Formats: sequence, C-alpha cells, structure tokens
Amino acid sequence: MSPEVNSSKGAATRELILSRALEMAEAKGLDALTIGTLAEAAGMSKSGLFAHFGSREDLQLAVLEVAVRQFTDEVFAPAVRERRGMPRLRAILANWIARTLRYGEDRGCPIGAAVQEFDDRPGPVRDRVMGYVSHLRREISRAVAMAVEQGHTRTDVDPEQFAFEIHGLMLAFHYEVKLVGRTRALPRVEAGVKRLLDWLTAASPSTPH
Amino acid sequence: MSPEVNSSKGAATRELILSRALEMAEAKGLDALTIGTLAEAAGMSKSGLFAHFGSREDLQLAVLEVAVRQFTDEVFAPAVRERRGMPRLRAILANWIARTLRYGEDRGCPIGAAVQEFDDRPGPVRDRVMGYVSHLRREISRAVAMAVEQGHTRTDVDPEQFAFEIHGLMLAFHYEVKLVGRTRALPRVEAGVKRLLDWLTAASPSTPH
Repeated sequence: MSPEVNSSKGAATRELILSRALEMAEAKGLDALTIGTLAEAAGMSKSGLFAHFGSREDLQLAVLEVAVRQFTDEVFAPAVRERRGMPRLRAILANWIARTLRYGEDRGCPIGAAVQEFDDRPGPVRDRVMGYVSHLRREISRAVAMAVEQGHTRTDVDPEQFAFEIHGLMLAFHYEVKLVGRTRALPRVEAGVKRLLDWLTAASPSTPH
Repeated sequence: MSPEVNSSKGAATRELILSRALEMAEAKGLDALTIGTLAEAAGMSKSGLFAHFGSREDLQLAVLEVAVRQFTDEVFAPAVRERRGMPRLRAILANWIARTLRYGEDRGCPIGAAVQEFDDRPGPVRDRVMGYVSHLRREISRAVAMAVEQGHTRTDVDPEQFAFEIHGLMLAFHYEVKLVGRTRALPRVEAGVKRLLDWLTAASPSTPH
C-alpha cells in the first residue's frame, strides 16, 4: 500500500469508492462489480482503484463487508434501544421491512443477491457470503431466544426454526416488491409478520386457557 | 427459419440445445446465457445457434419457458392425481420441496434467479419473468382456495396471502440448502410447512372448541 493511500485522505477516498461500489452492487449485483466497471462509474483510473483494492475479489469482499455493516446499522443497532424481548424483535422486523422498502423495485440487498450469484462458485467470496448470511440469521435467532427467555412468548419455540421462517417472509417480501411494487407488497409482509408473531405470543399448547 | 431447422430434426435439435441451455441457467443463472457461451457448451457454431434463436433474448425467453413448463410438470401436474383440497395442496408442497432438493447446493431454479437478475432491467425478459412468477403464485393461491372451498380449512383464509407465505418458506428453503446443505435444510422446511398447514387446518377462531 502506498503512503498516500495509507493516509487519512486515502481512507476517505476508499470510503467514497466503496459507497459508489455499494450502489452498483445494489443495482446490478456483486458480480457486475469489476475494477473496470467501477473505475468508469467512479470516474477514476483502473490503476487508481488497484491502489485501494488489490483485486476484483478484494473489492467484492470489501463491498460485502460494507453491506453487512449497513444491515447491522439499519436493522439491529436501532432495535437495541427497545426493551429486550418482543419489543426488540418487533423493532428488528420493522427496520428490516423499512430497509427492503428503501431498496424499492429495482435495487436490492447485495448480500441476498450474492447468495444466488456465488452459490456455484467455491472460493473466498462464496464462503464470506454464506458466513455473513449465517451470522445475520443467528442475530435473528438470538432476538427470538431473548423474547423466549423474557417470558414474552409461548414456551415451545425453536428460535433457529423461527428465524428461518422470518427470513422466508422477508425473502418473499423482497420478491413481492419487485412483482407488484412497494404499496401492494407492504400489507402482505405485515400480515405475514402479524401471523408469525401471533403464533409466537399465543399461549403455549399445554397452558390451560 | 431455414427448411432444415423447420423440420422435425430441427425441432429435436432445438430441444437438445434448450436442455443444454437450461442446465447452464440452473448453474449460472439466465444472465450467464449467451449465444457464445451456449455454442461452446453445446459444441455448436454460433451461426448454427442463431438459426434456432434469433437473438440472446429469444434464447433466454425460450429457456424461461422450458423452466416454467418443467416446474408445472414436476410440481402441479402430479398433484392433480390427489383429491381436491388439502391432499392436493400437500402434494404440491411435497413436489416443490423435491424439486428444490433435486437442484441441490450449487444449482437453482432459473426462474427465481432471473427475478434477481432482471429486476433492474425493464424489457421483455423482465416482463416475462415477473409474469411467470405471478402465474405460479396464482396456481398456489388456487390450490389454497380449493382447500377452503372443500371445507378442509379454517374459514378466515386469504388464499393469496397464504400463497405469499408458502412462497417465502420455499425461498428460505432454497437459501438454506445452499447455506447448510440438503440434509439439514429439509427438516427446517418440513417444520415450516407443518406450522403453516397446522394453522390452515385449525378450527376457525369463531368456531367453538
């Protein structure tokens, strides 16, 4: 790494490049991102980009990291202000829905797109993508488990299974926004979340009622 | 179209080319499919392929059509042998799960991949993809509606909403197979389907119990 790139100005430039790269990945997927296409979009030379990212793979991994950090900042971080248990889980789901709405009809979360793009290509990008998705899924499981521990839910809950089903609902919502637009997709996911959470907070089957 | 291509031999060749193209789309997505990459994979000349498909777009549309026909043949057609209502709906879901398992860890349904690939590109391929997904979703809704009509379910069911939630479960399963492999993914989707169908077949909230 050159001294110039290593400076704080270099770090700021890197951030700017990454935010441009993230926009491209949101529109076209991670796989459309090459040093060449990004250089053109960012109005930089390819050699200038290579000073920041040694290879296309480095660039893709850096963009993935930014996308995951952003997911955490938008979905999990604000929810920590809510009370542990159901209030926090509800906040996470509302934030996740807002994030998908923000992407709208013709962009999408690059992490999700990358699962489809890299599933058939063993290597560091695939491993990292799968690792990130597992990590985000575990965070959802933890939020569910916390709601169980707080006594806010029925008792026969498998948090990992429940996180899997929440993930499915969010994937269907992502599709639905593209199929019928945000306005018609929103009530679908809201009804789905309501049904899931109604089940979660219903009295346990063994509880007398 | 040349007389040779118009013959039954031409039609057989077209079928062979399409089955090779479908394999490519299952492994790499619809967007990786070009006349050039397919010519190489099929061991044909590009001009030979152009005699069958006038453009890359024609080729992609033809492959999509094959994928949709295959989905119908694998998922819906065998279920028609089952009794209308819940038996048929259960068969559809079991067939859909089997189809996803058949794809395994590093291939996938090209229709689903195409939603992600073409969501940002207005044009005939995008329109056709979205039309097909809406069509398949409507078929699921119809199967749910039939179960309601047969009196096999609770009465407060919105078949379209329920089809949306089933779709989500199948999307999550598709992801899960890639994340943790078929063996661990299967019980997840089975538990999810059970929970959905338990809800569907439970007594209506207003029904005394």
